Amino acid sequence: MKPVLVVLAHPYPDRSRANRALTRGISEIPGVETRSLYDLYPDFSIDVDEEQAALARANLVVWQHPVYWYTVPALMKLWFEKVLTIGWAYGQGGTALRGKRCLWVATLGGDASDYSDAGNHQGPLERFVPVVQQTARFCGMEWLEPLLVTAAHRVSDDDLAAAAATYRSRITALAAESESDVPHA
Amino acid sequence: MKPVLVVLAHPYPDRSRANRALTRGISEIPGVETRSLYDLYPDFSIDVDEEQAALARANLVVWQHPVYWYTVPALMKLWFEKVLTIGWAYGQGGTALRGKRCLWVATLGGDASDYSDAGNHQGPLERFVPVVQQTARFCGMEWLEPLLVTAAHRVSDDDLAAAAATYRSRITALAAESESDVPHA
Repeated sequence: MKPVLVVLAHPYPDRSRANRALTRGISEIPGVETRSLYDLYPDFSIDVDEEQAALARANLVVWQHPVYWYTVPALMKLWFEKVLTIGWAYGQGGTALRGKRCLWVATLGGDASDYSDAGNHQGPLERFVPVVQQTARFCGMEWLEPLLVTAAHRVSDDDLAAAAATYRSRITALAAESESDVPHA
Repeated sequence: MKPVLVVLAHPYPDRSRANRALTRGISEIPGVETRSLYDLYPDFSIDVDEEQAALARANLVVWQHPVYWYTVPALMKLWFEKVLTIGWAYGQGGTALRGKRCLWVATLGGDASDYSDAGNHQGPLERFVPVVQQTARFCGMEWLEPLLVTAAHRVSDDDLAAAAATYRSRITALAAESESDVPHA
């Protein structure tokens, strides 16, 4: 059983220090399946059946990626468009994701001061949450408190280890909870 | 001279009634160049040099597309990532777009009642503006009041004609203004 599905959208997963640290933290947890979109679909040809089958197996869906231009990378956006289809994920008969939980795990280049009115990004980080959050909610998923790692390029080893530990403990707890309500268990 | 660049991201530009009406309204205006991304790049292989050259020619950049999952389609997201490069569009020496104006023209399936707390999209449409707006602003572009056409699938002929007329008059005025400050005029 794989009650936790991590949909990972990093173009260079092994070259990102923050991404490596976060992913390493969870890869050994039992019940976690990771799908690395840029490894699976370098040509942007997403296998919709495979992706929907992986989602159907899961009770917790994690969307993990670096933030590019204030939201998900292009391949994850395409994954939303191709995989979350009408009649399956939403609309009439579209109940495949209903009641599953969704955890957003994103790394950002900027730090807290960049996400202020006077900063590089001219306002708070919270402005960019609704696009992703409402995508999950429109499919009837339960939105969990996101894990957003700022200053990903220059975060200290200690802070990065702390973020990875938080991620690991949340996934461990959620995987254990999910075990008990797996649809096909 | 082409002081207005319309970057159009519609997967089926001719099959969308709303998109057809809006595009027809502006295609004959002198000084308007339209680049249809899904026609140019069906394989998602964006020609960055061509796109940057088109942007360099323009004083007004229009981003026109249907809204998918609360933001731009995947190919326009990829266009942001590939074309708006560090050292060109932002960051040290990245001044190519500074001072140009940006107009967001988007069609949405939902109507006003869908974008309310009790509606399908569980809150106001304005929540989804910052991702696109801040992308323009981070490149030093001047953000104009967006043109958002709701209920695109079922808008009446009259309302659609009115939206197209608004779009046409805004582009006509902006193109005329832009003529006077074309860098290479």
